[in-house]
Amino acid sequence: MPLDADIASRLKRTDDGLVCAVVQERATRDVLMVAWMNDEALHATLTTGRAVYWSRSRGELWRKGDTSGHIQIVHGVEIDCDGDALLVTVTQEGPACHTGTTRCFDAGGELPVSAVAAP
Amino acid sequence: MPLDADIASRLKRTDDGLVCAVVQERATRDVLMVAWMNDEALHATLTTGRAVYWSRSRGELWRKGDTSGHIQIVHGVEIDCDGDALLVTVTQEGPACHTGTTRCFDAGGELPVSAVAAP
Repeated sequence: MPLDADIASRLKRTDDGLVCAVVQERATRDVLMVAWMNDEALHATLTTGRAVYWSRSRGELWRKGDTSGHIQIVHGVEIDCDGDALLVTVTQEGPACHTGTTRCFDAGGELPVSAVAAP
Repeated sequence: MPLDADIASRLKRTDDGLVCAVVQERATRDVLMVAWMNDEALHATLTTGRAVYWSRSRGELWRKGDTSGHIQIVHGVEIDCDGDALLVTVTQEGPACHTGTTRCFDAGGELPVSAVAAP
């Protein structure tokens, strides 16, 4: 079954047919990772309760956790003002990052900020 | 002054030379918006204390709030495990979205989720 036509019409996709998906943990409110969805991945995410993405590196649908066990249970999906980004609220089982860290941003870490504006 | 070479070498950019930037409010932990940065925007963000993006629609650097007054004061910038996404922690003055909502995801709203997996 394809993605609902009303939803599909609201998406502003890249040339590759993808929309950016930001993943936030419901309990901790951590931003866990950024991934990409095509229409099929979004449809699966909205209808199965599991977060499903499009793996750009492997060129295939990627149901998060099928290999690692670190699944994401989906509580909600919001779309932004211009339809090119999604915010997926999940319960994360185990670490979100394939490197073993809670967030993918823990793996990369802080960049040096050399100035802070006046509050 | 260009972006620090060590940082530049860690970025995995789109064909357009951009990296996805997720913006999270420090106090509320809301995910406010998703924007894009080129090297110059990231350099400005890291060194001026204000969030600066690349406007894909206008094709120019965009220092958030210069027109609206709704500036973002930068507290930190993290990079993800594979270098293609940034997480910018800010204090947001006023609404983040040009539509007047706190978050750009308030403007788009919830998509219908028809199934929730077992916890």
